[in-house]
Amino acid sequence: MADSNTARKILAIGLGSMGYGMARSAVRGGHMVWGQDVNAAQVSRFAEEGGATEPVPHGDLEAVVVTVLNAAQTEEVLFGPDGVVPRMRAGAAVMSCATVPPDFARAMATRCGEHDVLYLDAPISGGAAKAAEGRLSIMASGEPAAFSALRPVLDSLAETVFELGDAAGTGSAMKAVNQLLAGVHIAAMAEALTFGITQGVAPQDFLDVISKCAGTSWMLENRAPHVVTGDYTPLSSVNIWPKDLGIVLDIARASNFGAPLTAAALQQFVAAAGMGLGQEDDAAVAKVYARNAGLRLPGED
Amino acid sequence: MADSNTARKILAIGLGSMGYGMARSAVRGGHMVWGQDVNAAQVSRFAEEGGATEPVPHGDLEAVVVTVLNAAQTEEVLFGPDGVVPRMRAGAAVMSCATVPPDFARAMATRCGEHDVLYLDAPISGGAAKAAEGRLSIMASGEPAAFSALRPVLDSLAETVFELGDAAGTGSAMKAVNQLLAGVHIAAMAEALTFGITQGVAPQDFLDVISKCAGTSWMLENRAPHVVTGDYTPLSSVNIWPKDLGIVLDIARASNFGAPLTAAALQQFVAAAGMGLGQEDDAAVAKVYARNAGLRLPGED
Repeated sequence: MADSNTARKILAIGLGSMGYGMARSAVRGGHMVWGQDVNAAQVSRFAEEGGATEPVPHGDLEAVVVTVLNAAQTEEVLFGPDGVVPRMRAGAAVMSCATVPPDFARAMATRCGEHDVLYLDAPISGGAAKAAEGRLSIMASGEPAAFSALRPVLDSLAETVFELGDAAGTGSAMKAVNQLLAGVHIAAMAEALTFGITQGVAPQDFLDVISKCAGTSWMLENRAPHVVTGDYTPLSSVNIWPKDLGIVLDIARASNFGAPLTAAALQQFVAAAGMGLGQEDDAAVAKVYARNAGLRLPGED
Repeated sequence: MADSNTARKILAIGLGSMGYGMARSAVRGGHMVWGQDVNAAQVSRFAEEGGATEPVPHGDLEAVVVTVLNAAQTEEVLFGPDGVVPRMRAGAAVMSCATVPPDFARAMATRCGEHDVLYLDAPISGGAAKAAEGRLSIMASGEPAAFSALRPVLDSLAETVFELGDAAGTGSAMKAVNQLLAGVHIAAMAEALTFGITQGVAPQDFLDVISKCAGTSWMLENRAPHVVTGDYTPLSSVNIWPKDLGIVLDIARASNFGAPLTAAALQQFVAAAGMGLGQEDDAAVAKVYARNAGLRLPGED
């Protein structure tokens, strides 16, 4: 819990599945937190659950935490017509949490610097549940002053802060690496589970055995249960992956780096979105494999 | 340690990196173990290190453990010109450990049955170190009498025996599922680690961070250190994967099952073999990515 020395005035921009939990965690950490979102209902709900209700005092803010969908939205909320950075005081800090290209993070840091605003390149990992618990992993890079300014905020949001150097961009690069693996591993889980069905391996047996063998992954243990129980309530949705793997492949291509597994995984998520499953849990990529092979998954009629 | 009630007379066929360690573990477990291998030096070495030296008493054997490369070698040692099964007594048991197609396992069980020999479809997982320690995972299926006959042998070889039903084939199916994931995860690790290099993420930082994030896998934690240290001493070689992923894709195609990630991973291992890296540790698949992108890996000049 922050005391009077560490409590901060924070604006949380983006109150989606990650941002809402983070804003609540910041409140629980003793900070004064304003919420902002295109969805007015989310802003009202947050105000009812501990958020600050007065007009946002932009000139008094010590930190702005940005948890929007992508680079375009990040640029819009920072520097668009109603952008926050030009209204912030010198020495205040932006913590940017969306998955964005490293070059974009570097550009944002430079532009914030022109307003004497600090910038922490701080993509997050861990999912909505850990966001709500204040137990995220944060892959952060930026100048030491940005880390110092945001330390009490980071403490309220994260279980682990990976400090990846003093230049914006490295945090986003590490996040891209993590997303490459996470996306490939979800699709690989789906491919293996459905392949197993064709060979007489029941999904529950797949989970029981493979999670204890060399074929396991963090994503397999986290997502295969969704397929086994036929519950595709979105904890992280299919639509995340065409976006995040698209970022990976864009920056890979710009570096003349071929990423064939990532490319194959992306196509499976695109097919899932094409099947109308974009809002379902990302484990629903298993339905692409099942449809292509004429298989029935648990919970399907 | 087996006592006089559980000690078995065993023939271990195949004294390669897995089979040798398993044969030694069986000796340590109190069994009397003969070794057989195309490499006479391995047979001599095993005899010096605890193996039985008299002529193999085929008619007295209670178990034959087959740890050869593939289905063709398995069929050869069981039913070829010098095949062991026709010489075994009724009620003795074959434990077949190679990675083979499920249909092949079912055919072997049937043919063993014609000689009143029991058959356990028992692919293994865990690597050479665990084989030597008697701490393998075994994915086993077969009739209850086969499990009973082999129980003392299994106890000396395995930390975990997954009992996957009373019909040969299911063990091999589960092994194929595991190999699909293991192979894809090794290639994904290589893809992500080298992609990270293009974005300024050092291999050691990759390992330190990603192994604690949602992008991790058993294979990443096991194999990425080989790339980080530039040590490709083969614990499991590149050449395993064209074989094992080839089996997966063969049986997948026969079931009209498309496996795009597996297919992409296979091509990367084939390219590694084509680069002359077949005998190196399978983490050397990272060199395919590095060469294609003009990158330098740790330990390279």
